[in-house]
Amino acid sequence: MRLCDIGEFGFIDRIAPMGLIRPEHVVRGIGDDCAVIELDDVNCLLITTDLLVERVHFQRSWSTAHILGRKALAVNVSDIAACGGIPRDAFVSIAVPGHIELEWLESFYQGMTSLAGEFDINVLGGDTTRSRSDLVINVALTGVVPRDEVLLRNTAQPGDIIVLTGPTGQSAAGCEILLHQHQIPDSLADPLTKAHLDPRPHVKEGRFLATCHCCSAAIDVSDGLSSDLGHICSQSGTGALLCEDKIPLTEALSSACRHMGRDPLDLALHGGEDYVLIATIKEASLSRLEDEAKHQGIDLFPIGILQEKPGIEIVRRSGITEAVPPRGWNHFTKTSE
Amino acid sequence: MRLCDIGEFGFIDRIAPMGLIRPEHVVRGIGDDCAVIELDDVNCLLITTDLLVERVHFQRSWSTAHILGRKALAVNVSDIAACGGIPRDAFVSIAVPGHIELEWLESFYQGMTSLAGEFDINVLGGDTTRSRSDLVINVALTGVVPRDEVLLRNTAQPGDIIVLTGPTGQSAAGCEILLHQHQIPDSLADPLTKAHLDPRPHVKEGRFLATCHCCSAAIDVSDGLSSDLGHICSQSGTGALLCEDKIPLTEALSSACRHMGRDPLDLALHGGEDYVLIATIKEASLSRLEDEAKHQGIDLFPIGILQEKPGIEIVRRSGITEAVPPRGWNHFTKTSE
Repeated sequence: MRLCDIGEFGFIDRIAPMGLIRPEHVVRGIGDDCAVIELDDVNCLLITTDLLVERVHFQRSWSTAHILGRKALAVNVSDIAACGGIPRDAFVSIAVPGHIELEWLESFYQGMTSLAGEFDINVLGGDTTRSRSDLVINVALTGVVPRDEVLLRNTAQPGDIIVLTGPTGQSAAGCEILLHQHQIPDSLADPLTKAHLDPRPHVKEGRFLATCHCCSAAIDVSDGLSSDLGHICSQSGTGALLCEDKIPLTEALSSACRHMGRDPLDLALHGGEDYVLIATIKEASLSRLEDEAKHQGIDLFPIGILQEKPGIEIVRRSGITEAVPPRGWNHFTKTSE
Repeated sequence: MRLCDIGEFGFIDRIAPMGLIRPEHVVRGIGDDCAVIELDDVNCLLITTDLLVERVHFQRSWSTAHILGRKALAVNVSDIAACGGIPRDAFVSIAVPGHIELEWLESFYQGMTSLAGEFDINVLGGDTTRSRSDLVINVALTGVVPRDEVLLRNTAQPGDIIVLTGPTGQSAAGCEILLHQHQIPDSLADPLTKAHLDPRPHVKEGRFLATCHCCSAAIDVSDGLSSDLGHICSQSGTGALLCEDKIPLTEALSSACRHMGRDPLDLALHGGEDYVLIATIKEASLSRLEDEAKHQGIDLFPIGILQEKPGIEIVRRSGITEAVPPRGWNHFTKTSE
């Protein structure tokens, strides 16, 4: 049997129980955006790590080294944001093919530290080594969060309202434009390719949700809305009912999809790498939270509700309710859009 | 200019200043075995990360998946040991070529958790992804150490005695046997290939040195004795004088070198990946420390003394003093044995 037969999540389920040798102080191990470890009576340490492989996660020709450096850190910052945390210290390992110029590498680190500066993160160490084939980048990132503010995936309940902190589908549309070199006006393509190449991690939004004390669960959209909401549902033992006309679709996404002959809702539901947050909110607190978000300049889009019935459904504009199979990007089973 | 022109350490010198955005609480950033961050008034968090790339750091055909899993964690545990710390939580990222069997991967994780169990380490999370070419493994590992027990590289002084916690050169000899398939009796080859494939991180030794309060600096032997002692010297502003007849050479190393036509001293001085510790000890405390080490079953080999004169020298058995150019393994400049 190969990894592609059971996928990353199937594999994680098999290996996770092996690793918990010393369970005290471990709030969450494998299976969330970050591992969560009690530091003291008040605070938890968050740790996340992401591996980016050339020709699997990125093409070097698609962006500058500077922008790639920003993204390599951003995807980890987003994991800290999804747990409600404040990012702290980054550790970068990079395996470099011999033909890469030093200027490229320095520009990569400058990009990474430019994003680090925006989020007050140290880039403290790591490992630089040789690769015989592809460029490989691993970033490990720590963060901190008060124990009573940690946002997890497995703590949502039926009746909670599902909100997004930003629109989805833009990154996937940008990726399609880059992959297939669609002839689309720059004014439409630019915000979408930027969403894919230089995403903004939602740290401010994560802290807002962590401190509102009415957020029951959160996750970032890395694999896709359907897939990542599916993780909240399966880990919390709930299902979800989405409402088509509440799903935010940007004008850029809709226009580009007209050019590409694609359905924007399909990209919004199943396209990955938007790095906005999905959160679940106690219904009674929603209007207070929306007022407070508006006051702080934070977007919140209520898109549906958690229900007891397993699986994800969507109420279409026609009034018909359909099943939404989780169908985000999986590097192994390749159940992509 | 390419990385091979300036090497990993030249590159680190260029990028290190960029990354320190928030210096408070950072005891050490880039440039030691671990980053050292103050957790509270008493304890520091240690973090290290190492990237292992197939065909650069290992050949899959040389060992079982189980043994490779042990080594991938061991090299990081050794970094924690070199800082005097207690290892805590590991995070594993792995990029897997499509042809690798699930059984291989499970065996890899079982190997890793077998070593984790020996050192009371959790394997808590990470990232599993696809590779289009080589297998790539990144391990990030945390540890803790009391603030007044941290062992660093840049705190040694002239007059301190240089000790090893075990013999060097065995791993390099084992690597040569595997690479060149030398015809050597198993009884000689086995301890050497085991030293290379399944090294024991010197955590007990590191804690012993951290708590003796007479150890001025430490590092683990990953690149080679001359290269790693060179890091202590250059970062502490000292030189070193070694004594040839104090360098421990195991019988297995000497015998295998006779078969291979190699100089065992050359491998002991310049061969990497032994993962024993080099420490520097206040001379007045050495005999007390040796007694205590003997009592605790810990090996200590005094091999020389730090001196003010820069560079590393060795007093040969003939009585002649020679320069020892640092000549460990560097993946980029390839100044290897």
